[in-house]
Amino acid sequence: MTELLAASSPADWRTLDPENTLYMELASGRVVIELAPAFAPLHVANIRALVRAGYFNGLSIVRVQDDYVVQWGDPEAVRAIPGDIQKVAAEFDAQIDPRNDFTRLPDGDVYAPLVGFSSGFPAARDPKLGRTWLVHCYGMVGVARGDDTQSSGAELYAVIGHAPRHLDRNVALVGRVVKGIDELSSLPRGNAEMGFYSKAQTTMPIKTIELAADLAPALRSNLEILRTDSRLFTSVIEARRNRPEQWFKVKAGHIDICNVPIPVREIPASSAQSLR
Amino acid sequence: MTELLAASSPADWRTLDPENTLYMELASGRVVIELAPAFAPLHVANIRALVRAGYFNGLSIVRVQDDYVVQWGDPEAVRAIPGDIQKVAAEFDAQIDPRNDFTRLPDGDVYAPLVGFSSGFPAARDPKLGRTWLVHCYGMVGVARGDDTQSSGAELYAVIGHAPRHLDRNVALVGRVVKGIDELSSLPRGNAEMGFYSKAQTTMPIKTIELAADLAPALRSNLEILRTDSRLFTSVIEARRNRPEQWFKVKAGHIDICNVPIPVREIPASSAQSLR
Repeated sequence: MTELLAASSPADWRTLDPENTLYMELASGRVVIELAPAFAPLHVANIRALVRAGYFNGLSIVRVQDDYVVQWGDPEAVRAIPGDIQKVAAEFDAQIDPRNDFTRLPDGDVYAPLVGFSSGFPAARDPKLGRTWLVHCYGMVGVARGDDTQSSGAELYAVIGHAPRHLDRNVALVGRVVKGIDELSSLPRGNAEMGFYSKAQTTMPIKTIELAADLAPALRSNLEILRTDSRLFTSVIEARRNRPEQWFKVKAGHIDICNVPIPVREIPASSAQSLR
Repeated sequence: MTELLAASSPADWRTLDPENTLYMELASGRVVIELAPAFAPLHVANIRALVRAGYFNGLSIVRVQDDYVVQWGDPEAVRAIPGDIQKVAAEFDAQIDPRNDFTRLPDGDVYAPLVGFSSGFPAARDPKLGRTWLVHCYGMVGVARGDDTQSSGAELYAVIGHAPRHLDRNVALVGRVVKGIDELSSLPRGNAEMGFYSKAQTTMPIKTIELAADLAPALRSNLEILRTDSRLFTSVIEARRNRPEQWFKVKAGHIDICNVPIPVREIPASSAQSLR
């Protein structure tokens, strides 16, 4: 894997769009989330507006359920949502747009007719229905909701366990943690029902959630993501499907969509600046 | 699920065999591991002998790799392994024994021809080869090894992320954490290579690892596990495959082997005593 990536060319990588990149600042460090407007444009627009209104600043992580999700926001609705931000319609799946890339995984899937990667996100497709949706792999970020399928985007969660694929098409997935998921996954588990923090527990405050676009370039994380429509990414998948290291005695021959790593690299500040 | 379990009968549950139950005591609490001698008899025998020799007492968690494994033992071999404990042959898979139960999951699997549950453990089968093996779901415990396929059982790990199924048939899985996996999964991640703790990090000491059989009954955890060969367990699987709660708008229709929960309950000490 290291060797494969060392042989990459600059065109194999993409930078994150600052308008689609969130920084969640915790006392322990930064969590970087890439938003997926191609799959959930209404929710992503709402989340951008909430972030720009400073809505999440000073709120907390409220739920850490082992092998499942970390959730943040304001479940008791103490803080008012800005009046111009309305609930939006469900975005559980979307029409397949033939202009969008889809690197299909030929390995099969327990849950969906087809799985693969679209613009850096693990996704499923049902060609018969003509629909596509993001899938709940580790690190995916979604919008918590009640029984109502509409939501404002003010309650968010990230997956920190074995892919809870039964949630696919039941919530709007809006992005993926591309760096810092361990800041969330290593938090103490909540001991109230469903992993919510009980009153007796110390919650983890969120200093701020900001858009990369709203920060001075020097304060941004300079990350590049391997393009999932590159040939190199297909080689990465094959190297994970059939691990070449001598340690492996039986090669798996197959790979689960959520076991495919999407490589991320930090680019030195100097070369990042020369790109601007 | 709660309703299903409330309607269970005593015969749907089994107690843990104290000779196959390990207690790992950390400062934060107890981790309970059920051993699987049916799949790895040689390694389980070694682990029992190591535990009875006090081998693990005072050792540490040495590795916490996000979305992967927690590992403990003595990787630098500072502590001598008792002379009568030898490395044993690989136990990566086993001959299918027709006397053993296997509750097959009809949902398919990306990695193996057949998957299901044998005596409470997630397992795979290849009928053509006549072989069976435990699979790397969240909470499974295995024996770390080097390039050599033999191992003593002195280095162990537990899965704390999306099922790393590529490890199936490459290591001896020896059991499963049935309670307290969150004590391991919420530990700070190691910042050296492969998630090992660097010298600068505080490691998590293991007070003791003991066999339940060696503790006075009053000090044991009184747990019962839902039998995976019970009809009730099949109902639990169906309730997770097609979630009946109104919240779910699209039922998954399928379930991944590692998304099937194996219910555990604590029995009150009074009724536990009356069973003895």
